Amino acid sequence: MTDDNYQDPNPTRERFSFSISETDGAARTGEIEMKRGSIRTPAFMPVGTAGTVKGMLPENVEELGADIILGNTYHLMLRPTAERVYALGGLHKFMNWQKPILTDSGGFQVMSLSDLRKMSEEGVEFKSHIDGSKHMMSPERSMEIQRLLGSDIIMAFDECTPYPATYDQAKDSMELSMRWAQRSRDGFDEGKDHASIAALFGIVQGSVYEDLRETSIKALSEIGFDGYAVGGLAVGEGQEMMFKVLDFTMPKMPTEAPRYLMGVGKPDDIVGAVERGIDMFDCVMPTRSGRTGQAFTWGGAINMKNARHKEDPRPIEEKCGCPACTKYSRAYIHHLIRAGEMLGSILLTWHNLAFYQDLMTGLREAIGQKRLKEHAEQFRADYARGDIDPL
Amino acid sequence: MTDDNYQDPNPTRERFSFSISETDGAARTGEIEMKRGSIRTPAFMPVGTAGTVKGMLPENVEELGADIILGNTYHLMLRPTAERVYALGGLHKFMNWQKPILTDSGGFQVMSLSDLRKMSEEGVEFKSHIDGSKHMMSPERSMEIQRLLGSDIIMAFDECTPYPATYDQAKDSMELSMRWAQRSRDGFDEGKDHASIAALFGIVQGSVYEDLRETSIKALSEIGFDGYAVGGLAVGEGQEMMFKVLDFTMPKMPTEAPRYLMGVGKPDDIVGAVERGIDMFDCVMPTRSGRTGQAFTWGGAINMKNARHKEDPRPIEEKCGCPACTKYSRAYIHHLIRAGEMLGSILLTWHNLAFYQDLMTGLREAIGQKRLKEHAEQFRADYARGDIDPL
Repeated sequence: MTDDNYQDPNPTRERFSFSISETDGAARTGEIEMKRGSIRTPAFMPVGTAGTVKGMLPENVEELGADIILGNTYHLMLRPTAERVYALGGLHKFMNWQKPILTDSGGFQVMSLSDLRKMSEEGVEFKSHIDGSKHMMSPERSMEIQRLLGSDIIMAFDECTPYPATYDQAKDSMELSMRWAQRSRDGFDEGKDHASIAALFGIVQGSVYEDLRETSIKALSEIGFDGYAVGGLAVGEGQEMMFKVLDFTMPKMPTEAPRYLMGVGKPDDIVGAVERGIDMFDCVMPTRSGRTGQAFTWGGAINMKNARHKEDPRPIEEKCGCPACTKYSRAYIHHLIRAGEMLGSILLTWHNLAFYQDLMTGLREAIGQKRLKEHAEQFRADYARGDIDPL
Repeated sequence: MTDDNYQDPNPTRERFSFSISETDGAARTGEIEMKRGSIRTPAFMPVGTAGTVKGMLPENVEELGADIILGNTYHLMLRPTAERVYALGGLHKFMNWQKPILTDSGGFQVMSLSDLRKMSEEGVEFKSHIDGSKHMMSPERSMEIQRLLGSDIIMAFDECTPYPATYDQAKDSMELSMRWAQRSRDGFDEGKDHASIAALFGIVQGSVYEDLRETSIKALSEIGFDGYAVGGLAVGEGQEMMFKVLDFTMPKMPTEAPRYLMGVGKPDDIVGAVERGIDMFDCVMPTRSGRTGQAFTWGGAINMKNARHKEDPRPIEEKCGCPACTKYSRAYIHHLIRAGEMLGSILLTWHNLAFYQDLMTGLREAIGQKRLKEHAEQFRADYARGDIDPL
């Protein structure tokens, strides 16, 4: 008998397919089809860490054009726990989001947020940063948690190689991740009901070393995944190094599967990565920077706390159709942020998510019309005029 | 030439009228008509202290059935300042709320929130709790500020007599407030353009002393106001004493004008006050308690932080049509509140405001059908089953 939580949400749709409708240089635009909906690529996935895109109703996230959101395995396994989410019908029902959800493997946050970690071939022992409780995370457990959540795109459990790493450190770490990738594949496949409606992505590691990245791609390709992520970037190496790594990594990646750059990034990071062939992104930047008073505009990022906005009747961004821009002035949003009002965070988050989705729409259209180079150059020229380097 | 900010928003509507459609004992139901819209009474006014009903979009506050909201003069005069709100087109435009707004006079918050107060016949000198800047508040200045904000219902500047007060203290305080009431009337009338589209309410003081309340009502009636508020209650005297004061005050109030009980209150306070003839209420309770994890249900107030909700798939209140109740489980909202997620505050605020509006709808219908007594008794019997006494 099929587990109720894993009943096929739409028998008329494929489990997973990716079609590229147009290419422009290394860039591609297309669509991922999944049981719970289609994902237009290049795609930006808003981050819903603990079962909520902070400050937003899910229907509003959807209205902005998000086809998929990301949930964090580490946060959800600790609170409310994957078992409780499962008992309540899965993450989609719990948080009232019916489109696809991608969950990370928990590996990155286990290393960056938890206390008292102990790594071994088996996995990672750690203590919760919330209540000090002890947990063991392994490829098998990560697959189980992501399955309990009912995720649509499950990420393999890996070690995000710290930056900087020596060649030997990066090699050892990548090789461990590749052994864990095989165990992730096996663990995913064991959950047959769920595996028939969900997808599994592998994660390329290898730090800044070209041959290690190549070895990692080969290892993952041999195992076989629905999509391939580039991991270990956006961890402090800077945009120049990140693009350099993409420059030698992307040409070696499978072309027929989606490519996902994890945790990226600033708008100009995304534009540069799309030019290099990336199809999917996630980042807390639009949501987090919204809560700290930053707003994205086509003329660059601005700090809404700045006194120069206090009497400005204009919207944040004239060309934006979001509620923050169509109904409110910069002066009002400045006031809300200064007064610590929740609505300030809500409106800026809303606008920033709208901006990111509009950014992706523009990139998809430019690729579709084979004018990505001019589009990207115009974007960079305009965007460089901003006040601030965003968070 | 008419000031743009005070152009008649709707020449086809009266400045102010109040019609009572039905009475039931001392209770009445009816409608206040104003330039910016009608207010069904008894009415609950959500509090939008600093130009925002905390955590809510104004269109959602309106959808819940609010015909009017309250803004706080004290907060707005300090930040962003009344002059800036005026320059930006007035409070309605600033915060995107086109229905009526009532502003308090600032008197209550000057006394409860500011530093270094110095009271005189002229008014109150005080220092801002935000930045220490010095200000003078007087009946004339309060009228000017409320006019700059573009308020629809302006409250006379008074002293909210502290509780407890001796007879002599209460008498002196009330007499000062009555002199200030005349100065408020004069100040309001001087702003001719605004006075032609707005209304002015007087405030009855006199603490718990029947003859002082009577004297106050007579003094205000002689000056003449569009509505009459009962002030100096909900300041620590408790429900029993509050009802006792209403019992001897309400029969002396003008019957043809709306009666407003300031700062009240819990749902059962409101029901009891409606039975005694009150037409309008405002209170931070639904919004503030929402942010601290409390939810109102017809079976009483409950604390959503409580572990008993952690696996409960039911909505907060089965009989509620708000988004929190139609789309989410108690378990999810419990999770959000425990995790400190903004969406938890948003959904609980939303629900609590829906509950308060539903409470008023039920009271209006019961009065209309002359069955308020049974309705109120049933409400009290059900409501007493709650976990907690709300904030």
